[in-house]
Amino acid sequence: MWWEDKIMRTFRCRLKQSPGVLGSLLTSIGEEEGLIGEIKTINMGSTYVVRDVVVFADNQANMDRLIRVVQKNPDVDIIEVRDEVLEMHQGGKIAIRSRYKIDTLSELRKVYTPGVAEVCMKIKENNRLAWRYTSINHFVAIVTDGSAVLGLGDIGPLASMPVMEGKATLMETLVGLSGVPILLNTKDTDAIVETVTNIAPTFSAIQLEDISSPRCFDIEKRLQERLDIPVMHDDQHGTAVVVIAALINAARMADKDLKKCKIGQIGLGAAGLAVTKMLMYYLQNPVLGADIDEEAIKRLESAGGIPSTLEEICSSCGVVIATTGVPGLIKENMIRKDQIIFALSNPHPEIEPDLAKAAGAACAVDGKSVNNILGFPGIFRGAVDAKTPRITTEMLVAAAHAIANAAGEEELVPNPLDRSVHKKVAQAVALTALKQRLNREDLSGYFD
Amino acid sequence: MWWEDKIMRTFRCRLKQSPGVLGSLLTSIGEEEGLIGEIKTINMGSTYVVRDVVVFADNQANMDRLIRVVQKNPDVDIIEVRDEVLEMHQGGKIAIRSRYKIDTLSELRKVYTPGVAEVCMKIKENNRLAWRYTSINHFVAIVTDGSAVLGLGDIGPLASMPVMEGKATLMETLVGLSGVPILLNTKDTDAIVETVTNIAPTFSAIQLEDISSPRCFDIEKRLQERLDIPVMHDDQHGTAVVVIAALINAARMADKDLKKCKIGQIGLGAAGLAVTKMLMYYLQNPVLGADIDEEAIKRLESAGGIPSTLEEICSSCGVVIATTGVPGLIKENMIRKDQIIFALSNPHPEIEPDLAKAAGAACAVDGKSVNNILGFPGIFRGAVDAKTPRITTEMLVAAAHAIANAAGEEELVPNPLDRSVHKKVAQAVALTALKQRLNREDLSGYFD
Repeated sequence: MWWEDKIMRTFRCRLKQSPGVLGSLLTSIGEEEGLIGEIKTINMGSTYVVRDVVVFADNQANMDRLIRVVQKNPDVDIIEVRDEVLEMHQGGKIAIRSRYKIDTLSELRKVYTPGVAEVCMKIKENNRLAWRYTSINHFVAIVTDGSAVLGLGDIGPLASMPVMEGKATLMETLVGLSGVPILLNTKDTDAIVETVTNIAPTFSAIQLEDISSPRCFDIEKRLQERLDIPVMHDDQHGTAVVVIAALINAARMADKDLKKCKIGQIGLGAAGLAVTKMLMYYLQNPVLGADIDEEAIKRLESAGGIPSTLEEICSSCGVVIATTGVPGLIKENMIRKDQIIFALSNPHPEIEPDLAKAAGAACAVDGKSVNNILGFPGIFRGAVDAKTPRITTEMLVAAAHAIANAAGEEELVPNPLDRSVHKKVAQAVALTALKQRLNREDLSGYFD
Repeated sequence: MWWEDKIMRTFRCRLKQSPGVLGSLLTSIGEEEGLIGEIKTINMGSTYVVRDVVVFADNQANMDRLIRVVQKNPDVDIIEVRDEVLEMHQGGKIAIRSRYKIDTLSELRKVYTPGVAEVCMKIKENNRLAWRYTSINHFVAIVTDGSAVLGLGDIGPLASMPVMEGKATLMETLVGLSGVPILLNTKDTDAIVETVTNIAPTFSAIQLEDISSPRCFDIEKRLQERLDIPVMHDDQHGTAVVVIAALINAARMADKDLKKCKIGQIGLGAAGLAVTKMLMYYLQNPVLGADIDEEAIKRLESAGGIPSTLEEICSSCGVVIATTGVPGLIKENMIRKDQIIFALSNPHPEIEPDLAKAAGAACAVDGKSVNNILGFPGIFRGAVDAKTPRITTEMLVAAAHAIANAAGEEELVPNPLDRSVHKKVAQAVALTALKQRLNREDLSGYFD
C-alpha cells in the first residue's frame, strides 16, 4: 500500500559528542534502507548533542527495524520517536481568520452592526458589488465526496479532509486564495449538482476534487452549465495542464516537434481523457487512446480521439503517456528507441524511468515529476482575477505554456513552491480570459 | 430606513493650531445633530493639526449638511470625507489561512502528499479521528438564505454576506472558532435541509442565521433530526439566551422574583417564540403570548403558552417583552407601574425606554441593550468542546445564567467584547452538556 510506503518519523536522539557518531548513526539507518530527511540540533552539552533526525521507511515493520538498529548503537540514545506529521494535523491545518481585530465598540460597529447595514444595502442594490465588498472574491470551494482521493481510492469525505486542507493551505500560501473545503455526504450526481449549485453564491470559483470517474465528467459539465463562476475538476484539467507543460519541455529537451509526434494515451480515466483532449486542442492533431473500459473509449471517440491498444501505442507512437494505475504495465521490450515515455501512475509507474531509458527512451518521466500543485492555484487565481465565468481550454493551454516556460533549461517543470511560477500561471490565464472577453466584446461585470 | 440611520463617515480635517478650534468644530457638528465618534491626530505642524473625526448622521442628507457646516468654519479645512466602513469591507473581512508556512519541500511533504496519506488512512479506519486531525473541529457553518437579515428583511444571500462575515470575525475573535459563511441560492425548505445535510461532514456545528419565519422552525427541526452535530438558529435561541440573561438582571435590579412574575410576550416570530419557550422551560410557568398571525398563536399553544392580546398583556403582566418590529406599538398609557418592559425591536423599539420609565416602568430596555453577540460565540464553542450532538434548552439556560452572572452590579448584560464572558458561556454550556451525557451514561466519541 503506497500510503505506507513513506512513513515519516522524527527520531529525537542523544548522541555522544564525538567525531563520527552522527555519521555512524546515519550509515546504520541507510544500511537498513531507511532514508534521512532533515536533521536539526535541539540541544548541545559538553559531552552530548540532542538532534532530531527525520527518518523515512517503506512501512511500519521497517521503521521498527530502523529503531532497533539505532538502539543498538552504543553512542546513541533514542529519547523519543515522534510522528510529526500527525502532530501537525491536530486541530487541522487551516482556519478562518478575521482580517480586523475587534477590541473596541467602535471597531465592532464597523465590521458588524450598524456599519455593516449600509454595505449590505449597497450590495442589495447591485449584487455585483458583493465581489468587491465581501470575501466571495477570494473564496474558492474545494468540493469532494472523497471517492477518488490520491491513490487511496474511495476513502469517504471525512478521511479526505487532510488532502482538502492541504490544497487550501497551498491556495493561500501560493496565490492568496481562500480555499474552503466542502465535504459531501453523498455520491449521487444529481444531489452533488444540486448541493453545489445551492451554495455557489458563497464562492468565486468551484474546484472539484478527487471525485471518481465517470461521475466527475457529468458533475463538472452540469455545474458549468448552471453556474456563472468557473467550475474545474482539478484531477482532470489541473493534471492535464501540468502533464502538457512537462511534455512541452520533454520535447524541447529531446529536440522533437510535438506537433509532428504521434501521441498515444494509455488509460482514459479522469486525468487521461483530459490530457488527450487538451493535447488534441493544443496540437490540432488526433491522439491515440487505449483503455480496458468501453465507456472510456466511447468518450475518447466523441472527443475526436482514435481508439487503439496498449501494444499499438507503444509500438507506433513517439510519445506515450500512461495514467492507468497499473504498476509495471509497460515492459522494457515494448519501449521504442527515442520515445518520450510519461508513466505517470503514482506511486508506482507503468515503467520505471531508469528502465525505460535503458531500453532506449529519449526521455522517461514518472508521476513524481509532474506535480499537480503547479496547476490549480495559478489557474484559479487567474480565472478569479479576470472574473471569467468559465475556464476555457485556451486558458489551460496558456497555463501549461506558462509553467513550461518557467522551468530551467534542464527542468521538465519548475519548482512548485516558487511563488513567481504561480503568478505567471495566473497572469497567463487572466490574460487569455480577458482576450477572449474582448473578442466577444463582453466586459459585463468586469469593472464592478 | 434604519440602515441609513447611522451613516458613519471619517472627516479628515486640517485645523488651525489654536485653542478652541477643535471644540468649535465639534460644537458645530453637534448643533446640527451629528454625533462624534473617534478622533485621531494624523499629523501636526507648527500652525495646523490634521485630525480624523468620525461623524455619524441619521441619513445622507444630514451628513451632507454636516459637511457644509464644517466647510463654513474658517479655521477648518476638510481634506477628505472617507467611508471607512466601506473601505474596510473591500476584499471582505475574513480569509482562510494556513496554520503552517510551506517554503520547503520538506514542509510540503508534511502538510500535503505523501505525509497526508497516513493521516487520511487513520481517519478512514476511525472516522471519529477526523475531529482530532482536521479543521472540522473548529469549522462552524454560518448558513443563510438572506431572507431576514438584521432589520433589513429579505435582501438575498449575496447582500447578507457582510453580516455573515461579521459573525465569522466575532467567532474567531471571541472564541477561536472558524465560522464559514454558506450563502444559499434557494429559499425552499426541502432544498435547504438537503443541501445543509449534504455538506454537514465539513463542520462541527451548524449556525442557521437570518432565515425568515416560519421556515426557520421547520428547517432547524429537520436538520436537528438528520444530523449528529449541533444545529442552532441563532435568531431564535441565541437571541432568547441574551434576552433571558438581561431579564434575570432586570428582575434582580427591580427586586422582583421572576418565577412569581406574570410574563407576556408580544410578537411571536422567530425570536419571540424562542424567548417564550425558553422562559417557560426556565420558570416552569406558562407565558402569555400575542401575535396578529394565527399560525404563530398555534405554535405558542402547542408549546404550552397562553394566547392573549397586546392590551391584556400590558395591563396584566409584570414583565412585558415585545419583538414585533412595530415602532411605538406600546403607548405610554399602556404602561403599568413597576413593570419591566423589554421593547426589543431594532432600531426603533415598541416604546422608548425613557417614555416607559416616565410612565412608571421599574425597568425599560430596548434592543440595543440586548446584544446578540453575547450568545452565539460561547454557545457554539461550548457545544463543540463538549462534542454534544444537540444544544439543549438546559444548555441555553446555563448560557443565559453565565451571561447574567458576568454582568456588573448595575449592568443588564456584560460587555460583549470581554473575552472572559464568552469563555464563561462556553464553560457553562459544555458543563451542562457533559452532565447531560453523564446522566445518559453516554460518552460515545468523547475521548476520540
